[in-house]
Amino acid sequence: MQFIIQRDRLVQSVQEVMKAVTSRTTIPILTGVKITVKTEGVTLTGSDSDISIESFIPVEEDGNEIVEIKETGSIVLNARFFSEIVKKLPMDAVEIEVQNNLQTIIRSGKAEFNLNGLDAEEYPHLPLIEEENILRLPADLLKTLVRQTVFAVSTSETRPILTGVNIKVENDELTCIATDSHRLAMRKARLENEVNGTYNVVIPGKSLNELSKILDDTNEPIEIVITENQVLFRAKNLLFFSRLLEGNYPDTSRLIPTDSKTNITVHVKEFLQAIDRASLLAREGRNNVVKLSTLEGGVIEISSNSPEIGKVIEEVTAESIEGEELKISFSAKFVMDALKALEGTDIKINFTGAMRPFVIRSLHDDTMLQLILPVRTY
Amino acid sequence: MQFIIQRDRLVQSVQEVMKAVTSRTTIPILTGVKITVKTEGVTLTGSDSDISIESFIPVEEDGNEIVEIKETGSIVLNARFFSEIVKKLPMDAVEIEVQNNLQTIIRSGKAEFNLNGLDAEEYPHLPLIEEENILRLPADLLKTLVRQTVFAVSTSETRPILTGVNIKVENDELTCIATDSHRLAMRKARLENEVNGTYNVVIPGKSLNELSKILDDTNEPIEIVITENQVLFRAKNLLFFSRLLEGNYPDTSRLIPTDSKTNITVHVKEFLQAIDRASLLAREGRNNVVKLSTLEGGVIEISSNSPEIGKVIEEVTAESIEGEELKISFSAKFVMDALKALEGTDIKINFTGAMRPFVIRSLHDDTMLQLILPVRTY
Repeated sequence: MQFIIQRDRLVQSVQEVMKAVTSRTTIPILTGVKITVKTEGVTLTGSDSDISIESFIPVEEDGNEIVEIKETGSIVLNARFFSEIVKKLPMDAVEIEVQNNLQTIIRSGKAEFNLNGLDAEEYPHLPLIEEENILRLPADLLKTLVRQTVFAVSTSETRPILTGVNIKVENDELTCIATDSHRLAMRKARLENEVNGTYNVVIPGKSLNELSKILDDTNEPIEIVITENQVLFRAKNLLFFSRLLEGNYPDTSRLIPTDSKTNITVHVKEFLQAIDRASLLAREGRNNVVKLSTLEGGVIEISSNSPEIGKVIEEVTAESIEGEELKISFSAKFVMDALKALEGTDIKINFTGAMRPFVIRSLHDDTMLQLILPVRTY
Repeated sequence: MQFIIQRDRLVQSVQEVMKAVTSRTTIPILTGVKITVKTEGVTLTGSDSDISIESFIPVEEDGNEIVEIKETGSIVLNARFFSEIVKKLPMDAVEIEVQNNLQTIIRSGKAEFNLNGLDAEEYPHLPLIEEENILRLPADLLKTLVRQTVFAVSTSETRPILTGVNIKVENDELTCIATDSHRLAMRKARLENEVNGTYNVVIPGKSLNELSKILDDTNEPIEIVITENQVLFRAKNLLFFSRLLEGNYPDTSRLIPTDSKTNITVHVKEFLQAIDRASLLAREGRNNVVKLSTLEGGVIEISSNSPEIGKVIEEVTAESIEGEELKISFSAKFVMDALKALEGTDIKINFTGAMRPFVIRSLHDDTMLQLILPVRTY
C-alpha cells in the first residue's frame, strides 16, 4: 500500500472517523483507524462497535487531484497517534507507505514517521445494509431535529431505552421523541421522498450527538436506511452506522394534554433571561426550582428563594395571559433547555393546573413541542 | 450603604478581585467580596490570605459619572453568587442597597435580588505597607518577565521555595529566576527608576500567574513595593498583594556554564516544530525524551523511538553548527517550554557535552536565558 495525499484533506477525514474511536475499548484493533486504498481512492474507518464511521477520499474531485495511488492495500494504524501526527506534519503533501511486517512510513517534507501497523484483515467488517427503503432529509434539518430533541434523553441507565431518541416514520412524516420521564421533546418533519411502510426505532442519543458534529450545515440530502438493528446515515463521501437500542419505546402520545386551563404567550428572550437569573439562587437550594405566578395586568412573576443565600423576584410582561390564575414551580434547567431548543421569538405555554405537565410551543410552528412536569412545592 | 453603578464597570472590578477568592478556604468570610463605599468611589476586595486584590471604581472618570453614591458604608457578599448575578443583570444601571440586618438589595430593571450579607467589620484587614522604596516597570514588561520565567517553577511541594520566582534587585536591574532543578529560566530587566539598596525575595508562582491575568498589555507603569513578607503591585485603581515565600533561594549563578563545546544557531520555528513532532511518539515512551544529533553539513537530526508504537526522525538545517560532534537526549516538553518563552526568530544553543546542562538564548538578546539538564539515555 502506498499513496500521496493532500494533508488537509487527510486531517479532515481522520477527524471524522475519530469521532467513532474510543481508547476505552476491550477490542485492541478498534483503537486503530483502518486505511483502505483502492484505485478509486482512500477509505478511512473508525468504530467503537456502537458507532462506525467510514470517510472516503476520492482520487480526484472537481478536477483536482487529491490522492495519487501508487499501490493498493490496507493497514490499521493507532488512531490517536495517527491523528496527532497528520495534524502536525510540516508540508501540504503526505506520503504513506506500508513496508514489510506492517511497518508504515508517513513522510512529509523532512519528517519521517515509522509506525507499527496492525493487520487490516483483523478489523471487524461493517454491517452490510440491504437498502430496501431510503429516507431523505437535508443535513441541516436533520441536525435541527437532533438538536431540538436529543438533550431530553435520559442520562440514567435504569431504563436504557430512554437514553435513545425514538424515531417514527409514518405517511412520509418523521417524528423524533426524547424523554427522561421528567420532560419530553418532540419534533416532526416531512421527508423529502415517499416511503413505503412504517418505522419505529430508537437510536442512542450519543450516536445522534456524534452524527450532528460531523454533518455540515448545508441542505445536502442525507440518506437514512433503517434495518432491524442498525441505522445508516449516508452523506457525500461519508457513511455513519449506529446500532439501534433494543426494546419498546413507551407510548408517549397519551402524556400530552389536549386541554388547558391557563395559556400564556410571551417573548422567549425576556422570559428565558428572567428564569436564568432566578436560577442563580435556585442552584444551591431545592434542586434548581423556580416559581412562576400570574399577576394582574398580564404580568408574570418569576421568583426563587434560597433561605441561606437570599431571594430573587422579577416581573416579565407577557403578550397575553388567558384563563385561570396560576402558581407553579418547575426546574429552571428543564425550561431553559426547552426554550433554547425552540425557534422563533414568541412562545405559547399551555398549563393544566399546578400539578399537571405543561406544554411549550413556538407561537407559529406546530412541528415541535416541549413538555415539562412541574415540581411540587406547596 | 447605597449606590448606583454602571454594570459593565462593576462586572470588570468583580472579575478582578475574584482572582483572589477561592471557595476552598477555611475562613468563611473570605468566600465573600467586600464592598466599601466612600464619597470618592467604591472599593471591592477579594482575598485568599495568600493573595489579596483591591479594585477601586471612582465616582467619576474622564468626566463621565460611573457611580452615584447615595449613602456610604460597607458589606461582604458571597463572591460566587454576587459575580454571577452582576454578569446576568438585565440593564446597564445597577443599584445596590444594604437594608436592615445586612440584607442587601441588588436592583436592575425589573429584577430584584435580595442577598444575605456578612458584616464587613469581620473581614480581615489588608497589610499596611510602608513605602520606602518603589520599583517601577511598565505593565507589559512585567507580564513578559512573568511569562518567560514562571513556567519553570517547581510544581512539587518537596522544596516549597522552588514553587516561587526569585526576584533580585541590584544596581537598578531586576532579575527573575525560576527553577524546578531540571531546568532554569532567567530574565533581567532595567527598572524605570533608581532604587536604593538591594532586594532578594521569592514570590509564589501562583501569585504571579494571577497578577499576569489581571494586568493589561499596556506600558502603564506598575509600582512594586517589597517588604519583609509581602509584595504589593500597584496599577491604576488596582492593588495586588502577595505574601512572599520564606526561606533562602538557592544560589543558581554557579549552575550556568561559562564555557561550551558545541554551539548551534537555528531558526526557532522549524526547530520547535520538529521537536513537537518527535515528542508525539515520545509521550508514551521514556518520559517524553527526544534525541538530538549533529550531522555533517550543518544538519541537526531530531529523533525519537518508542518500540511499541514506532519511531520518528527529522532533519533540521541549522544556521550554523560549531565545535564538537554531539548526541544528546532531553525532555521535549522542557525544550519546547523554553523555546516558546524566547523572543525573536533565531536562537543559539550552547552545549558542554551530552551530560552537562545546555543553555538556550535568543541570538541578539542577552537579557534572558533558558538552561536545561539533559536526560541520560546511553
